[in-house]
Amino acid sequence: MYIDDTIAAIATAPGEGGIGIVRISGKQSLDIAEDIFKSVSGKKIKEYNPRTLIYGNILEDDKIVDEVLVAYMKAPYTYTKEDVIEINCHGGFLSVKKILELVLKKGARLAEPGEFTKRAFLNGRIDLSQAEAVIDVIRAKTDLSYDIAQNQLEGSLSSQIKKLRDKATEILAHIEVSIDFPDEDVEHITYETLYNKSQELKNDIVKLYETAETGKIMRDGLKTVIVGKPNVGKSSLLNAILKESRAIVTDIPGTTRDVIEEFVNIKGIPLKIIDTAGIRETDDIVEKIGVEKSKEFFEKADLVILVLDASRELSEEDIDILQKIKDRQAIVLINKSDLPSKLDEEIIKEYIDEHRIIKISAIQRIGIEKLEDEIANMVYKGDVSQKNTVMITNIRHKNALKKAIDSINDGIKAIKENMPLDFIEVDFKDVWTYLGEVSGDTVSEDLLDTIFRDFCIGK
Amino acid sequence: MYIDDTIAAIATAPGEGGIGIVRISGKQSLDIAEDIFKSVSGKKIKEYNPRTLIYGNILEDDKIVDEVLVAYMKAPYTYTKEDVIEINCHGGFLSVKKILELVLKKGARLAEPGEFTKRAFLNGRIDLSQAEAVIDVIRAKTDLSYDIAQNQLEGSLSSQIKKLRDKATEILAHIEVSIDFPDEDVEHITYETLYNKSQELKNDIVKLYETAETGKIMRDGLKTVIVGKPNVGKSSLLNAILKESRAIVTDIPGTTRDVIEEFVNIKGIPLKIIDTAGIRETDDIVEKIGVEKSKEFFEKADLVILVLDASRELSEEDIDILQKIKDRQAIVLINKSDLPSKLDEEIIKEYIDEHRIIKISAIQRIGIEKLEDEIANMVYKGDVSQKNTVMITNIRHKNALKKAIDSINDGIKAIKENMPLDFIEVDFKDVWTYLGEVSGDTVSEDLLDTIFRDFCIGK
Repeated sequence: MYIDDTIAAIATAPGEGGIGIVRISGKQSLDIAEDIFKSVSGKKIKEYNPRTLIYGNILEDDKIVDEVLVAYMKAPYTYTKEDVIEINCHGGFLSVKKILELVLKKGARLAEPGEFTKRAFLNGRIDLSQAEAVIDVIRAKTDLSYDIAQNQLEGSLSSQIKKLRDKATEILAHIEVSIDFPDEDVEHITYETLYNKSQELKNDIVKLYETAETGKIMRDGLKTVIVGKPNVGKSSLLNAILKESRAIVTDIPGTTRDVIEEFVNIKGIPLKIIDTAGIRETDDIVEKIGVEKSKEFFEKADLVILVLDASRELSEEDIDILQKIKDRQAIVLINKSDLPSKLDEEIIKEYIDEHRIIKISAIQRIGIEKLEDEIANMVYKGDVSQKNTVMITNIRHKNALKKAIDSINDGIKAIKENMPLDFIEVDFKDVWTYLGEVSGDTVSEDLLDTIFRDFCIGK
Repeated sequence: MYIDDTIAAIATAPGEGGIGIVRISGKQSLDIAEDIFKSVSGKKIKEYNPRTLIYGNILEDDKIVDEVLVAYMKAPYTYTKEDVIEINCHGGFLSVKKILELVLKKGARLAEPGEFTKRAFLNGRIDLSQAEAVIDVIRAKTDLSYDIAQNQLEGSLSSQIKKLRDKATEILAHIEVSIDFPDEDVEHITYETLYNKSQELKNDIVKLYETAETGKIMRDGLKTVIVGKPNVGKSSLLNAILKESRAIVTDIPGTTRDVIEEFVNIKGIPLKIIDTAGIRETDDIVEKIGVEKSKEFFEKADLVILVLDASRELSEEDIDILQKIKDRQAIVLINKSDLPSKLDEEIIKEYIDEHRIIKISAIQRIGIEKLEDEIANMVYKGDVSQKNTVMITNIRHKNALKKAIDSINDGIKAIKENMPLDFIEVDFKDVWTYLGEVSGDTVSEDLLDTIFRDFCIGK
């Protein structure tokens, strides 16, 4: 781990904008900035108070690269707790690129994705769950997912985890006292107390753990595919959903041109609709790939929406899809329900719960609200108040909690079997360790690399 | 024109990034910021020195919206010469959006595109050609076009225009003295001197005017279409060009999904290649639109590259295209030139200059350098040194100079015809006025609106 060198990156989003920022962090930051920056006043950066925005130019071989505002933030009161320089220049592609190249030429190293935040964690300014929340705040797709991430960034999950660890510590202290002062009477009480305390701790952990399913959806979106035969109204449905709710992001970077993902905001839930319509192409080979991709999306989706046409009888193809969604999270929409129905709903009910069958008219925008309610019910499990509590949104946290629960179950079992205390102690030490993985108190370097690799550069 | 109210906008590019900035300008800036910001120190913004980055939180109803750095820049030493607040928050879509909404709720008005820069101009910090350069710096696609825009931003065009106007003023002074003190002898000298001085000024303006053709290409890119029958190697050529040079931007916002524009950097020239390959679709109607769009691109292109297949004889279709490019800026590429030739080059030479016919092998990357040289020759007209001078990149400046040239021609004609001096004076006043349009000394409000409408929001 290189923690002693100086890193730099473009900190603003790429693209056309008024302002771009190049950020430098590390011991050399100030020297590098003094070397390439000339203030209009003629004074050096260090002659100003730290945190002052200084107006001047970035120069390379006496030629102006751009006019900028430079600020020097002195360690440890900075994002990384290291010396930080921020150079505010013109937006767009070239100014930030040229300034970054110059900074790298002067001795800084290009920061890895998330490396500024990683340093903030390693230098103890924030814990790991807070560091992870940084990217969740940036990537949040709905107000609700933003709030959850902000809460986590402010340390709400950290303090929850700290409380749970304190409880584990209390149990461990209890065990240790009993080991050090063994006494028949005390021991009897100890097992009973231990059992109660352990159950209490377990319940707390499980309660947090159970938020993970909704939490993951809030963070990553509910992967949704719309399926159905041609001309049943899939596109009209998509349009209806897009218009009712507010599309936040249309093109997601990294997706290929022929598969389009759109995020829509359904009652705070980021619904990630995969539109496979664009996949079909003239060429046979391409068509085949298209069909295979559609299948893949179908398999991976969190939610399948099957659209049927009320004015047509159920075909074998429909039954085939109904069979496939029987054990899935699915909703059946009977479209064109304003037309005389030729559809046998009784057959559909054999495959899916009645409340998951919704009559709509995509073109007339009838039933869309009902569809949204059903999706919200599905995600919040009827418990809308869930929205306001601390939530596990991160699969890594979920896994750590799962391991903590497994260990506490082992511990409880051992307590019930009156196993030796030092045997029980091991399980509770594990609980304490696994909880610590969430906050990063107990964490390996490899894991850190994995976590921050997913960040954007410049954060 | 509202110049007295307070405006706000997101100043960074939309999308995923570490930092986002919300910028406020106007008299209310500080009050609004004090209202929504709470520093960690507990102090108000105004208790700090101006231009200090202050750490704290943006709050709405006591709930943290985001943790931020806020800086207050006091008029007149700011971008707009007004009071400016910059709020640096987390990047992404939601944080900037939420903070901007809050700022607007507190009384700021959403800034129009380019309004910050417009105020910088109206308040006299920069002249109009500098203001226009701001967006050119942001949108520059190659180092060279960036340098030209930076030069203009620094005022190189402004000072050139100032010199030309000074010369016009000198001529006007000469005329006025002669009007005020009429004398036969002096008058004779005056016409001769006037003629010489006018010619000199005219030459200077024309010289600047002549940079406009190249300059426009440097700013907006050279619109290029690649045409040819199926399977002659259009895609391989595109790939070869993309790999040899460095693609800067692939997706240009605002273009539709089925028409893809790519910028490549050919010896400093931003080549805007319109790839019509993606237009063709299964559906007949779509195909028809595709073909029509292709035709439209063909008509509008600055450069047409016709690709022929050396291993096939010229078809009627080829001849048809050759006829169409006869009077156009065009290059004919004979692809697959490593295969035995069946192509009659003599026929091609009837339609296009020999040096514009280049043998290549797109797949083996032979001849691509020669193609690039030919394009550079075409744009720089053999005068590569042109690259380093002040350039007219903006059609508005070009038009103003054209009007100045027309007026000076009228003036010179009047001098040659020994017309009365007060008659001649009118022409030179026009010259002076038209030159002033470039720097914005003489400019209408409507024109300003048109200029800044093209800017991005937040600049």
